[in-house]
Amino acid sequence: MKDHTIDITLSSTKKQKPESDQLVFGRVFTDHMFIMDYTEGKGWHDPRIIPYQPIILDPASMIFHYGQSVFEGLKAYLTKDEQVLLFRPDKNMQRLNKSNDRLCIPRIDEELALDALKQLIMIDRDWIPGAEGTSLYIRPFIIATEPFLGVAPSKSYQFIIILSPVGSYYKEGIHPVKIAVESEFVRAVSGGTGTAKTGGNYAASLRAQEVATDKGYSQVLWLDGVEKKYIEEVGSMNIFFKINGEVITPSLNGSILEGVTRNSIIQLLKHWNIPVTERKISMDEIYDAYSNGLLEEAFGTGTAAVISPIGEFFWRDEKLVINNGQTGQLSKKLYDTLTGIQKGTEPDPFDWVVEVK
Amino acid sequence: MKDHTIDITLSSTKKQKPESDQLVFGRVFTDHMFIMDYTEGKGWHDPRIIPYQPIILDPASMIFHYGQSVFEGLKAYLTKDEQVLLFRPDKNMQRLNKSNDRLCIPRIDEELALDALKQLIMIDRDWIPGAEGTSLYIRPFIIATEPFLGVAPSKSYQFIIILSPVGSYYKEGIHPVKIAVESEFVRAVSGGTGTAKTGGNYAASLRAQEVATDKGYSQVLWLDGVEKKYIEEVGSMNIFFKINGEVITPSLNGSILEGVTRNSIIQLLKHWNIPVTERKISMDEIYDAYSNGLLEEAFGTGTAAVISPIGEFFWRDEKLVINNGQTGQLSKKLYDTLTGIQKGTEPDPFDWVVEVK
Ligand SMILES: Cc1ncc(COP(=O)(O)O)c(C=O)c1O
Ligand SMILES: Cc1ncc(COP(=O)(O)O)c(C=O)c1O
Repeated sequence: MKDHTIDITLSSTKKQKPESDQLVFGRVFTDHMFIMDYTEGKGWHDPRIIPYQPIILDPASMIFHYGQSVFEGLKAYLTKDEQVLLFRPDKNMQRLNKSNDRLCIPRIDEELALDALKQLIMIDRDWIPGAEGTSLYIRPFIIATEPFLGVAPSKSYQFIIILSPVGSYYKEGIHPVKIAVESEFVRAVSGGTGTAKTGGNYAASLRAQEVATDKGYSQVLWLDGVEKKYIEEVGSMNIFFKINGEVITPSLNGSILEGVTRNSIIQLLKHWNIPVTERKISMDEIYDAYSNGLLEEAFGTGTAAVISPIGEFFWRDEKLVINNGQTGQLSKKLYDTLTGIQKGTEPDPFDWVVEVK
Repeated sequence: MKDHTIDITLSSTKKQKPESDQLVFGRVFTDHMFIMDYTEGKGWHDPRIIPYQPIILDPASMIFHYGQSVFEGLKAYLTKDEQVLLFRPDKNMQRLNKSNDRLCIPRIDEELALDALKQLIMIDRDWIPGAEGTSLYIRPFIIATEPFLGVAPSKSYQFIIILSPVGSYYKEGIHPVKIAVESEFVRAVSGGTGTAKTGGNYAASLRAQEVATDKGYSQVLWLDGVEKKYIEEVGSMNIFFKINGEVITPSLNGSILEGVTRNSIIQLLKHWNIPVTERKISMDEIYDAYSNGLLEEAFGTGTAAVISPIGEFFWRDEKLVINNGQTGQLSKKLYDTLTGIQKGTEPDPFDWVVEVK
């Protein structure tokens, strides 16, 4: 590891921690945060852990105008014997730098970022909830801070990490969601920013999400922006289908996000000798498989829910009910295995888990 | 006008104003700013003018994560007899609300926003530069402020207006730019956010811009995201071509921004009985016209440069030099007329200009 000293200023007051069963997603933050500045000519400098506090920015700062930002999302888990585990955090730091490249943001030192993340977690260790399904959500993000209204890459940035204890995604055990296939709005297109984790992609998704919610669907399934035929991904999840014994998922086509969970699922399936293919998948193909009784399961994959079984698609005014709206066997097995690895209760054949000490 | 009182707190200190000939774009801001808050259930409230000051936001504020933001850009001009003129400001406020709709941001009261803008300008009136080509750039913008990491429309916002005295776009008189036709990266696609003025569109443009700049081109010409064949727009400008006496510009196809300058140019051309058509235009068509010696002029239109003549396109490793790299007659006439109307030296047949008193 390179030499880098992270300056630490501890908070003199501690916030009240929420009860484990009161936890929701992303509303409560811990006592400290990590912050590091970038200045042109100087590079990234002054990595420090400080009490959680507001950010103070000139109103002309570029983040308010031109959306130059990237972020990541991962989780820390507390095991039964009070170990703190991270799941493939190096993958998130690599992806952060990939996003940086697309958004013209200077790369960060991945090792330093990982080290910062670990130190921050250890300082706010008491905030990691232990109850079934709970975890500490970690949000690293970078924002453009130069006060300048020209459309150009910013000359200054802040890299920040905040932590939020989050509740179980499934309050009453894993259960399927209903998804609306989106045929009007588009999330991303090849040549755009779809492969990067940047704010604009999520801003672009809000309108479609709102329409779907109004119709009683929890998320939208994005189709490609060119032909509006091929399946991309779901909200904050990649998507998988089990058709006639084979698992398929859209290939990394230049407009979807490469999920860490997606990658892990593919490796697990191969490990289990279950056929899995990454390829172009049209909605017509899914419809045909459904009509022929061959669409056995569908599920989303992402850090938040890990596995989110899909019980119904709404497409062209028709409801496609999958596996009687129940969680499929494979979905359940993947969920149990992956959450087990993350919580340290299942063997970890791929060395995915990293202990924070 | 509805009843709305804008609270005013004047700054006790005044910043030093830059010399007229030292002015650049978007780096210096006036002594005051306008700000108004949105709170769910309460709507937009507390419109106020306060000393220019930093914005203080929780690090979990949505603007830092999911890019939910919109903005506008317009200018105030000082006439020879010290009148302050705005150019079609109602158009910008309408467009801001159109952008709001796309980004799930609550609409603002356009009249209130216009009134706020005028009051702010009058308070910082001394900042409006008078020299040829200079103006006061006005930047209204809205940011999502709720401290929440869920991907959903924010429940709180700030609407802010800041002012920046800007120098002449053309230091040595109007002159043509060189533009690279972009065939890898995509700005926007139908169903996306291209018609809205939102940060993510500009973040998405940075990488292509960087590549073009490295090759010696000042901007990129975007092609459509579906076939990468049809012409969209340039950086922060719409685009026009004069081919064999006829003026053409891409139609509002659902992925380009509807420029106020674009709309004004079309009206002016019609007024002059010069044929002008809005339609789909392929880059192949432009190339053919060029090869046949029929491509007489090309120019970009936008608030910053008003008219930006294009002297050269770079496409598929070939340089298309237009009008010998010189400013065309029509480009010059449009520039002189429009800047004349804006500065109050030319008649204003369309009542575009609004005096601020
Ligand atoms: C757009 C999008 N797709 C997919 C994912 C799933 O990625 P991961 O498995 O790394 O959480 C996410 C969430 O991070 C996302 O935001
Ligand atoms: C993407 C884009 N297109 C076109 C324009 C031109 O619009 P207007 O003439 O209203 O300035 C702008 C600038 O506002 C822009 O940002």
